[in-house]
Amino acid sequence: MSIQSINPRTATAFGRTFEVTSDQETVHMITAAVAAQKIWGAMSAHKRAETLHLVADLIDSQATELVEIADQETGLGKVRLTGEVARTTFQLRLLADAASKEGFFAPELDSAVEGAPPQGHPNFLRTKRPIGVVTVFGASNFPFAFSVLGGDTASALAAGCAVVIKAHSAHPQTSQLSYEIAMDALKKSGAPAGLIALGHGRQFGTVALTDPRVSAGAFTGSRSGGRALFDIAQSRPNPIPFYGELGSVNPVVVLQSALTDVAALATGYLDSLLLGNGQFCTNPSLLFVPESDEFLTHVKENLATREASPFLSELTQSLHDKNRDHVRSSTKPLQYAGKSAPGEGFFSTPEVFVLMAAKVKPEELAEECFGPTGIIVTYKNLQELNSIVAKLEGALVGAVFASKDDSQLPGILNLLAGNCGRVVLNAWPTGVAVTAGQHHGGPYPAATSVLHTSVGVHAISRFLRPVTFQGLPDALYKAVTSEPVKGN
Amino acid sequence: MSIQSINPRTATAFGRTFEVTSDQETVHMITAAVAAQKIWGAMSAHKRAETLHLVADLIDSQATELVEIADQETGLGKVRLTGEVARTTFQLRLLADAASKEGFFAPELDSAVEGAPPQGHPNFLRTKRPIGVVTVFGASNFPFAFSVLGGDTASALAAGCAVVIKAHSAHPQTSQLSYEIAMDALKKSGAPAGLIALGHGRQFGTVALTDPRVSAGAFTGSRSGGRALFDIAQSRPNPIPFYGELGSVNPVVVLQSALTDVAALATGYLDSLLLGNGQFCTNPSLLFVPESDEFLTHVKENLATREASPFLSELTQSLHDKNRDHVRSSTKPLQYAGKSAPGEGFFSTPEVFVLMAAKVKPEELAEECFGPTGIIVTYKNLQELNSIVAKLEGALVGAVFASKDDSQLPGILNLLAGNCGRVVLNAWPTGVAVTAGQHHGGPYPAATSVLHTSVGVHAISRFLRPVTFQGLPDALYKAVTSEPVKGN
Repeated sequence: MSIQSINPRTATAFGRTFEVTSDQETVHMITAAVAAQKIWGAMSAHKRAETLHLVADLIDSQATELVEIADQETGLGKVRLTGEVARTTFQLRLLADAASKEGFFAPELDSAVEGAPPQGHPNFLRTKRPIGVVTVFGASNFPFAFSVLGGDTASALAAGCAVVIKAHSAHPQTSQLSYEIAMDALKKSGAPAGLIALGHGRQFGTVALTDPRVSAGAFTGSRSGGRALFDIAQSRPNPIPFYGELGSVNPVVVLQSALTDVAALATGYLDSLLLGNGQFCTNPSLLFVPESDEFLTHVKENLATREASPFLSELTQSLHDKNRDHVRSSTKPLQYAGKSAPGEGFFSTPEVFVLMAAKVKPEELAEECFGPTGIIVTYKNLQELNSIVAKLEGALVGAVFASKDDSQLPGILNLLAGNCGRVVLNAWPTGVAVTAGQHHGGPYPAATSVLHTSVGVHAISRFLRPVTFQGLPDALYKAVTSEPVKGN
Repeated sequence: MSIQSINPRTATAFGRTFEVTSDQETVHMITAAVAAQKIWGAMSAHKRAETLHLVADLIDSQATELVEIADQETGLGKVRLTGEVARTTFQLRLLADAASKEGFFAPELDSAVEGAPPQGHPNFLRTKRPIGVVTVFGASNFPFAFSVLGGDTASALAAGCAVVIKAHSAHPQTSQLSYEIAMDALKKSGAPAGLIALGHGRQFGTVALTDPRVSAGAFTGSRSGGRALFDIAQSRPNPIPFYGELGSVNPVVVLQSALTDVAALATGYLDSLLLGNGQFCTNPSLLFVPESDEFLTHVKENLATREASPFLSELTQSLHDKNRDHVRSSTKPLQYAGKSAPGEGFFSTPEVFVLMAAKVKPEELAEECFGPTGIIVTYKNLQELNSIVAKLEGALVGAVFASKDDSQLPGILNLLAGNCGRVVLNAWPTGVAVTAGQHHGGPYPAATSVLHTSVGVHAISRFLRPVTFQGLPDALYKAVTSEPVKGN
């Protein structure tokens, strides 16, 4: 079996073919990764950061070529993809620097306390070690930022882990080129061979997640795909952490106090909803607005001017269309549409469904329409709003639009915090800054691990495990950590 | 069905019977816990600490009564149990204070940065919230410190969670009395009703872990029991974190440089091995020593003087005996024995098996003999030692005895760090201090979550989930956190 790129604008295959990785190759990759990880993990975080900067520099220097091929494979457009390359290299540098500077490896010294237990105890030095080899699954919708050299790979490498990466089948050439550039940089900097490896095919992913020598998995993608991999990781003889970001249905609440410039609100909504053809896991899937004919009219008229954009793949389109049609038939909504999709390629017409809060059941809203379909729920009062929002499943992000002194605002912020990982005030949820304060996660199905983020500096902590040393004399600290021991 | 205490010294049932908790009662408990958690979680950590101190004070004031009944149910002896009550109340106070003082809830302010992405971003306030309702499973071997009011309950309550606790069937009366004292204290301090609940029976545990409103599970116990519960938690429609500490086979390495006072070494080994009848998850299960007839003779002669102690329950004994006999028949060891077990009650004769490294396979050593059975592996050289230790499964703790300037020591410390959560120098592994630097966990099967500890201050972080607020004005910080925002 082999894999070939398909241009989603024309539905035509192009370019070289990639053989799926054999089980034997996978085992060899992991053997090499285990050996490489021992060397890479024993380096100082500062030394690793130098290498990762070199990877970022080389990626930047070949951005034009990367964007060219990614645009053909994903149809996301060169402007967006150029920005995404910059985001990806920024992320590599930020995480590498954070690992070396922000105390992720800083040992915690708990000095001996004289006397009998429970108060008295010997000295402890609590250190952090890389978890080992990590299997990373590239995502389709961000061919750079959440793919071969995306946030999962960057945080795992920054943490001192080796990575075995499954290329997403929707952009194999972009994946291969990213990998080759990274390999170039790693070789130049003298990093151990086998530190990163790239494989193709579904079977490869399963084998690379099941190997007993692999210590964690990381994934961004669909709920069904992510859950299947999560189940594999958890049912191993030795279960391992599996950091899946499975996407979500994100609630956005408009309070009455925000219904001032409704035209701008409608434009902002559709811009966010249709960004990247709606293929953002932070898409404003569910918009709650007070009953307002004026706002709905603006949405309807504005949407009518919007063109269809290509899906990432035929599969993405068919999943979207199936879920959209299911929501349509089960909720019987008022329907608005954008311009008709062209006949060739993977396109669907942008649509917005309008429902009344009083008539909708929260479970009918659980289906993620990953693509250019939005749902607006109009509510009469806060009780209607609360009763639905409180029952929604976990989400990556919720947002609220309101006047800053709206007395309802604190209640809504806390309501959204109940099932969202990030709560945004007066901005649309798409756009996830790579920074220390970020949290891109949330209760299931937003993430399979509610404690962790897949974006931002804290993503590093997913790949570090504590090891405490008891009773070491000062002279031996340097044998177990390359970091300075404070208070020593 | 009902549950009754059994005195392990005599194998006779005694005292009141406990009905197993019905599914309907369980659902009501969780409904009450959800409501209570909202109130408890919204209090400041400082206010919660006051309440938890009151619980600790009341437990201390009834220590004599608690120890009396626990001794009858567990056979662990009053000296040990008195110490364990002190440890438990120390732990309640330490975790409560740590949650309020050591920054677990401290919001992280990431101020806005001007400019376009990826560098520019709005402001973020990264907060921590209690995860929700936690189902806690009491352990048999620590009827206080790892049971109803043990470390899991203490850390969950300190984190602002409500707890639903499954009493261990081997000490139902101790569980009930602990619960009643805690309820007294909670009522006196005005804590919300339903904050803690106690149930009995295996079915109760399953229902309480499966309920969709429960957000985490915590367990200390056997590998088979813990894995079954882990599987339940992970196969829910919405999987939740399950913090299982499943025990382990802990390696202790004696280097040649430590073979000075071999009599003292043999005594220390047997004291640690037979502590609490060997029913410690930090038991020195596997002792690696250089070939030394002198040391073995000391172990043999010293062991011959040791009395048998009661098991916690018939089940614990039968599991131990089965695993011990399996190791005996598969490895055909040299065998040393203590004094013969008495005919009545749940006793087994203490035993030590001696094997040669050259003839043993690591997988033969994977069976945990939870009880008074130890294995000594004698090695000829470090290569023999390394080849076995490197292949052992994850363990809670490893230890090494060596002269501090032994040039082999750094290598052994790092070897043990490869699969242990805690590495001890020149002390026996039993005894787990409750303190900030502790790590009681490790790669599977030591723990189901390799990133977390079930003992010490960091145990709190298992029950906190991040929520980031984006774009809030300063004035709204107090709406989403009761903690001061630094840099504000």
